[in-house]
Amino acid sequence: MTKIIKNGCIVTAADTFMADVKMEDGIITAIGKNLEDDHAEIIDAKGAYLFPGGIDPHTHLDMPFGGTVTKDDFESGTIGAAYGGTTTVIDFCLTDKGKPLSEAISTWHAKSKDKAVIDYGFHLMISEINDEVLQEIPRVIEEEGISSFKVFMAYKDVFQADDGTLYQTLETAKKHGGLVMVHAENGDVIDYLTRKALEEGHTDPIYHALTRPPEIEGEATGRACQLTALTNSHLYVVHVSCQDAVDKITEARNKGVDVWGETCPQYLVLDQSDLEKPNFEGAKYVWSPPLREKHHQDVLWNALKTGQLQTIGSDQCSFDFKGQKDLGRDDFTKIPNGGPIIEDRMTILFSEGVKKDRITLNQFVDLTSTRAAKLFGLYPQKGSIAVGSDADIVIYDPNVERVLSAETHHLTVDYSAFEGMKVTGEPVSVLSRGEFVIRDKQFVGRAGNGQYLKREKYGSERRIKTETLPV
Amino acid sequence: MTKIIKNGCIVTAADTFMADVKMEDGIITAIGKNLEDDHAEIIDAKGAYLFPGGIDPHTHLDMPFGGTVTKDDFESGTIGAAYGGTTTVIDFCLTDKGKPLSEAISTWHAKSKDKAVIDYGFHLMISEINDEVLQEIPRVIEEEGISSFKVFMAYKDVFQADDGTLYQTLETAKKHGGLVMVHAENGDVIDYLTRKALEEGHTDPIYHALTRPPEIEGEATGRACQLTALTNSHLYVVHVSCQDAVDKITEARNKGVDVWGETCPQYLVLDQSDLEKPNFEGAKYVWSPPLREKHHQDVLWNALKTGQLQTIGSDQCSFDFKGQKDLGRDDFTKIPNGGPIIEDRMTILFSEGVKKDRITLNQFVDLTSTRAAKLFGLYPQKGSIAVGSDADIVIYDPNVERVLSAETHHLTVDYSAFEGMKVTGEPVSVLSRGEFVIRDKQFVGRAGNGQYLKREKYGSERRIKTETLPV
Amino acid sequence: MTKIIKNGCIVTAADTFMADVKMEDGIITAIGKNLEDDHAEIIDAKGAYLFPGGIDPHTHLDMPFGGTVTKDDFESGTIGAAYGGTTTVIDFCLTDKGKPLSEAISTWHAKSKDKAVIDYGFHLMISEINDEVLQEIPRVIEEEGISSFKVFMAYKDVFQADDGTLYQTLETAKKHGGLVMVHAENGDVIDYLTRKALEEGHTDPIYHALTRPPEIEGEATGRACQLTALTNSHLYVVHVSCQDAVDKITEARNKGVDVWGETCPQYLVLDQSDLEKPNFEGAKYVWSPPLREKHHQDVLWNALKTGQLQTIGSDQCSFDFKGQKDLGRDDFTKIPNGGPIIEDRMTILFSEGVKKDRITLNQFVDLTSTRAAKLFGLYPQKGSIAVGSDADIVIYDPNVERVLSAETHHLTVDYSAFEGMKVTGEPVSVLSRGEFVIRDKQFVGRAGNGQYLKREKYGSERRIKTETLPV
Amino acid sequence: MTKIIKNGCIVTAADTFMADVKMEDGIITAIGKNLEDDHAEIIDAKGAYLFPGGIDPHTHLDMPFGGTVTKDDFESGTIGAAYGGTTTVIDFCLTDKGKPLSEAISTWHAKSKDKAVIDYGFHLMISEINDEVLQEIPRVIEEEGISSFKVFMAYKDVFQADDGTLYQTLETAKKHGGLVMVHAENGDVIDYLTRKALEEGHTDPIYHALTRPPEIEGEATGRACQLTALTNSHLYVVHVSCQDAVDKITEARNKGVDVWGETCPQYLVLDQSDLEKPNFEGAKYVWSPPLREKHHQDVLWNALKTGQLQTIGSDQCSFDFKGQKDLGRDDFTKIPNGGPIIEDRMTILFSEGVKKDRITLNQFVDLTSTRAAKLFGLYPQKGSIAVGSDADIVIYDPNVERVLSAETHHLTVDYSAFEGMKVTGEPVSVLSRGEFVIRDKQFVGRAGNGQYLKREKYGSERRIKTETLPV
Repeated sequence: MTKIIKNGCIVTAADTFMADVKMEDGIITAIGKNLEDDHAEIIDAKGAYLFPGGIDPHTHLDMPFGGTVTKDDFESGTIGAAYGGTTTVIDFCLTDKGKPLSEAISTWHAKSKDKAVIDYGFHLMISEINDEVLQEIPRVIEEEGISSFKVFMAYKDVFQADDGTLYQTLETAKKHGGLVMVHAENGDVIDYLTRKALEEGHTDPIYHALTRPPEIEGEATGRACQLTALTNSHLYVVHVSCQDAVDKITEARNKGVDVWGETCPQYLVLDQSDLEKPNFEGAKYVWSPPLREKHHQDVLWNALKTGQLQTIGSDQCSFDFKGQKDLGRDDFTKIPNGGPIIEDRMTILFSEGVKKDRITLNQFVDLTSTRAAKLFGLYPQKGSIAVGSDADIVIYDPNVERVLSAETHHLTVDYSAFEGMKVTGEPVSVLSRGEFVIRDKQFVGRAGNGQYLKREKYGSERRIKTETLPV
Repeated sequence: MTKIIKNGCIVTAADTFMADVKMEDGIITAIGKNLEDDHAEIIDAKGAYLFPGGIDPHTHLDMPFGGTVTKDDFESGTIGAAYGGTTTVIDFCLTDKGKPLSEAISTWHAKSKDKAVIDYGFHLMISEINDEVLQEIPRVIEEEGISSFKVFMAYKDVFQADDGTLYQTLETAKKHGGLVMVHAENGDVIDYLTRKALEEGHTDPIYHALTRPPEIEGEATGRACQLTALTNSHLYVVHVSCQDAVDKITEARNKGVDVWGETCPQYLVLDQSDLEKPNFEGAKYVWSPPLREKHHQDVLWNALKTGQLQTIGSDQCSFDFKGQKDLGRDDFTKIPNGGPIIEDRMTILFSEGVKKDRITLNQFVDLTSTRAAKLFGLYPQKGSIAVGSDADIVIYDPNVERVLSAETHHLTVDYSAFEGMKVTGEPVSVLSRGEFVIRDKQFVGRAGNGQYLKREKYGSERRIKTETLPV
Repeated sequence: MTKIIKNGCIVTAADTFMADVKMEDGIITAIGKNLEDDHAEIIDAKGAYLFPGGIDPHTHLDMPFGGTVTKDDFESGTIGAAYGGTTTVIDFCLTDKGKPLSEAISTWHAKSKDKAVIDYGFHLMISEINDEVLQEIPRVIEEEGISSFKVFMAYKDVFQADDGTLYQTLETAKKHGGLVMVHAENGDVIDYLTRKALEEGHTDPIYHALTRPPEIEGEATGRACQLTALTNSHLYVVHVSCQDAVDKITEARNKGVDVWGETCPQYLVLDQSDLEKPNFEGAKYVWSPPLREKHHQDVLWNALKTGQLQTIGSDQCSFDFKGQKDLGRDDFTKIPNGGPIIEDRMTILFSEGVKKDRITLNQFVDLTSTRAAKLFGLYPQKGSIAVGSDADIVIYDPNVERVLSAETHHLTVDYSAFEGMKVTGEPVSVLSRGEFVIRDKQFVGRAGNGQYLKREKYGSERRIKTETLPV
Repeated sequence: MTKIIKNGCIVTAADTFMADVKMEDGIITAIGKNLEDDHAEIIDAKGAYLFPGGIDPHTHLDMPFGGTVTKDDFESGTIGAAYGGTTTVIDFCLTDKGKPLSEAISTWHAKSKDKAVIDYGFHLMISEINDEVLQEIPRVIEEEGISSFKVFMAYKDVFQADDGTLYQTLETAKKHGGLVMVHAENGDVIDYLTRKALEEGHTDPIYHALTRPPEIEGEATGRACQLTALTNSHLYVVHVSCQDAVDKITEARNKGVDVWGETCPQYLVLDQSDLEKPNFEGAKYVWSPPLREKHHQDVLWNALKTGQLQTIGSDQCSFDFKGQKDLGRDDFTKIPNGGPIIEDRMTILFSEGVKKDRITLNQFVDLTSTRAAKLFGLYPQKGSIAVGSDADIVIYDPNVERVLSAETHHLTVDYSAFEGMKVTGEPVSVLSRGEFVIRDKQFVGRAGNGQYLKREKYGSERRIKTETLPV
């Protein structure tokens, strides 16, 4: 049960240094020079970085959408995640109007319980506010350990909530220690633009992007920030894709509004032109919000560098190209939205971010792990290589060069969104609570080993020890 | 030579956790649960935080100004610093036009060598650019370990450089690995406004503030940012005092310009009305830039929270009220600028920032230590509690309540700018490279123990191990 | 039928000069020095300005609202207007979902036909878009002479249209030569905030303001501007009340979006504190958007000065204090929204704007008359004192001092929103198409004399003669 | 002495209408339908617009620069102006440090007195402030009729004034009724960049642009606006060339600062690539500020449309290509700055602005004439077609198509900056104070007929009649 990783270069959200790491019973107990323990298993990490296991705050595993279900579930999805260095996922638990929140949570427990190979938690979708929901929210936070709530400003007549509901969710979450997450696009306008495009005979995937322009993501983001300011509450904007949205987040933060922003690897390295690939291949690149014109990428990278965006989620939501994506062959609105990113999330950020000097090593760790742990009530159990934390550690070879491909990835989905992309760096081994999930690039974990994580309230990490430290 | 601090709560710029810290020969060698070593001195830090020793990136010790010399020199100044938890200072080495830079550096070594009780480095002022200076700059960076250069946009006919000089300094520093620091106020306008005020018979200290309005700090800050953008170089704006300047820094950063900002405790807790204190007491509060109206404080705190400002300097520059400040009794322009802050810098940030939940514990460490280490080429030797770093550690009681006062501070200057201010928290003991400088609130160090720090080039911390890590 | 006004000082949106004005058959035929005509009636305007008759682009006469009907109808309302120097009003024709637009237009013709004492036109409300509405819009523009369409973003479940409807209205109006007007407040949020306030027992008039904060006017204004940009169309924001909205309009205009803004006298001189007047008097000041805190006034005045806002409407919508406003005595949401402004619109702008040097005389004319004529397709028939235009002229005494009051106003409503306000300036006589409506401060017109104005398409004034001028 | 122009379409800054214009003794006395006067000369303007004679607020005639003198003096320059529809110029009177302002004014009177064919006034350059200058400024305003003062922020060691001088000029001008004009570029930075370019062997004309990037025009413009705000005074920014400067002006205006901006035809239709024309032809396009990249043009046009820029100057400053421009053949810094624009100023704005629907006809008049008259104290004598104003009238054929060329222009300079440009529209005849200067496209005026214009104080037009109108 005791292991020592020797000779690695430890990286936290603040520090970079050579030291050994000792873990006992799944917990990190020492970090030092030349750590010794006769009973410990010794792991040599020479030439490698040791990163805290990644936390993917945005996944959709085993999720129904548009009459189909994501190809990757909690088993294949978390296996892919582990291969990529991620040891925790927070998945979105969808709710149905008119049904208790608890029912949705039970459903999600059933989907994940015996399948996940790494630890996981849930965000909970809010699509309506009524007396029952108002009563359930504090209970969900206190008892279920779910302290983040997702509101959709898009997907009219499906997920979309109106501004009154968003306002009340912000107010209620604030009161009980929750964080509200928004999908920020103007659903009413999208609804009209998509209907119009179809009426005009435009059915190709590129129209998915053209009917959801960046301006309406910026608009909805600004609207959500404004309601957050009015309610003096907390907001986390998921999958920020464009300058329009970054500008609104920055503006709000500069006025003192507590707003956080997440972007995703796809927005950093892919662009709108991918939707125009021939033979319906564009369908592989259908996300909401859509991929943007290339110039938005620089703005996103700069926002990561300056701290105006704080996390990287994958928005993992995979559908096979054959049999699923092609439901929309004659109608782009029928293409299931989303793609497989969970496995390559950290790799892309390392290769394109750290290696190209757009962000520092410490920012990489903060963006892929530490900050999500803090925002979503998992810190200090998760999110760092520190004494007392779970021994979720990635042994990372920063110099290997390889090519991303569906041939080599470990998800079950039949394509890769990054097919052919050259990257530098790869996880060699990955430990979850001190046990190997990936060892020498092979999966050695087990479905069901992943544990459900009850998360603390929003802001709990700020208060660690501050008030309670005894003198 | 071996010590273990037990039972403390370690805080880094990213993490907060309970662990013991072991140090050998002045270097941190292990962090862990229940560290044991029969030969080690055991220090109990129960109920205390362990912070990395503070780094004050902005001090003026033993500095001549306006016909007098700062009261506190490298001995008394660094003793005060140590009492306040600071274990490294970077002082400004002033140069004279027409003389070699090396001469100024020699002078500053002479001032500091046998006096400093903690480690120290130098920034170098640039007041003119000519062929000699252009040749000396790379040598100073490479050989003297001075990688930051200060340009004054104010103090006309004294320190002030023109925009061409600033531009060329930015360009030259960029080329050789230096960081340019600016004092950003429009000196030409100040020169006229002060002459005018005196002509109109306005001699009181408040006119110091009224003749240097925030607009001209904003203006000069924006100008410096613009030149930084044009030269694609790096800028560090010292002592940001107002919203006008914060806005310009934020605007530049959002456009991708590499600009950093420092503020000081005085701007966070004092305000312009202090300059109106009767009996010439306002003179105690004469800084440049001046204290601002109270509403600027919220903007500065928010900029620290969101990361638009990154460091806290003291701008320590102390003059006795009697005998020095009163040189300006009949003419506010003759009041020596500056005040005693070096000792209370961290205390105020902890008490007003962390305790009032404006910033997190980790941000406190980043602001007072880690970020300065990284920006000024001292990391990882300084700036963190991490294996391999110097054992510069503050054992900090977060709960003691006390009152700041000249009665109790340890500088030689005859007043405190924070007289009577109630604060929570105090360093109990302070170690520099593993040796106590302060032990149980008593100075136990020695003048001359402080070592001169040759600093690395700007950006060197970003490249730690990234390229060199062997596989 | 021929008149000459002598000795007046003519003011247009560009010029100010002393000259006589001759009118024949209701049309201005000459402007010059010492005009003579033996058959003309001579009117002496010595000491007076001659302004083009005011155009009030925003009135609600004889409008049903919340179970009651505005006190002033097309007769008393236009009499009040005339006393104030206004010779044209454009009233809002409300439509019902599911009914043809033409039915609503007929209703409005019936309300106005035999009552109006000055000329009038209609804007048309759009609350839904369907195939019938899409077909009616071009017909309404071409045949009915109604080229402006109002969309409400507030009044949930009453007038409110969703963003898809707004988008499509913008698109459709653009195609056929129409201008879209928006009431920009976020109705969903207001709906929740008002319900919540009532639940919490807050029934006083001040809660009308507190449940419609400026942030949500800013938000909705920005949203409308964004949709205008996306559709490359034209927008007119009615009754801008606050800095938040001005900022959004300015931002859009600076990006090249064709957005125009109107404010109203009440927002320029009254403020939120008026809603707190005792004895339910606050109800007299219930407008939507509500009166704002005083600091917004400076921003509105500056926006008028710099041209970021272009027109002054009255939003005339009067209800008696007794019998109507008091429907909301126990519930602020039941207070009929609106007040009597039509008569004092120009007086307040002259007294507070021109006399206090916030705007120029020429801007006064542009704001109260010329610009509205141009935006709403009435120019050059209306909106100027120029050869060929209708002889709608106000003879204005700029120096008389008086006090506004319900005692002296000419509306039938039982209170004045400006009771007791001292103003300088008053119309002495007012001519509509060359005939006196007000003569020596007495009404001499007749109900039914006002003619319905078929208006040209948006932008038609830009094209006067440019292409058609023969060589 | 009496003339009537019949059948023309009169355009003012507000109105467009068909009417006859009668003028007596050089003054407009009537505007009307079918004006008759047996003694009048009748001029048929069928198919033509009648514009107020243009006012060019920015000319350099007979100006020494860099060891040479502008090719066009007050005779040839004003002849060219008249051909282009301009009937008033305001020329910059340069001063020498250490000499009385009055001496410079005398010199300028000598240059212009017997040469100008149209009316003219002077702006006065301020390069230093001392007691003599402070005393002369009010005298110059009151007695010489010069109410505008130019400060250069560029041309180091030649014209450049420091920020203290600018500040004091703003303050002094404000006090006495003057308007300050700035050339806003950062001269210190330009000085360094040009020296550096030459050292690196870059001598071509394009380096003129590359050493004066738009960022430093933006910077200097912002700086000037900031000083204007601090002094609560008035500013007119000459020759705005780029978005960077427009943004600063807009920002200041939105904050309530009284700032005005002028752009020039060259910035609207030419761009930086013109400087790269082969065979040293780029030298023809050397202005300061330089021509910018093409995308700035849209911003300038939009600023004219929205009113953020208010006037069009020519910055006329012509040098022959052969014998003058080629002084800089081996060194771009020796190319005399400036070009011939005075003649084509209005034509280009009409053809590119009105005809392409970027601005309205009324805006055209305001931009080329009315606004300059108001800002510079010439209104109502100049700047409009209104009763009582000077009969400065352009009879303009809006439909003739022609090509601009040095072959056909009427300046003496040997090239045209717009060679080969196709335009629509041309002045047919031009009257100055009721006398033809151009008749049927032929010059019929006389050197010396132009009168010197004593101008009123800044803001005088706002006060016309307002206080003095008798009742």
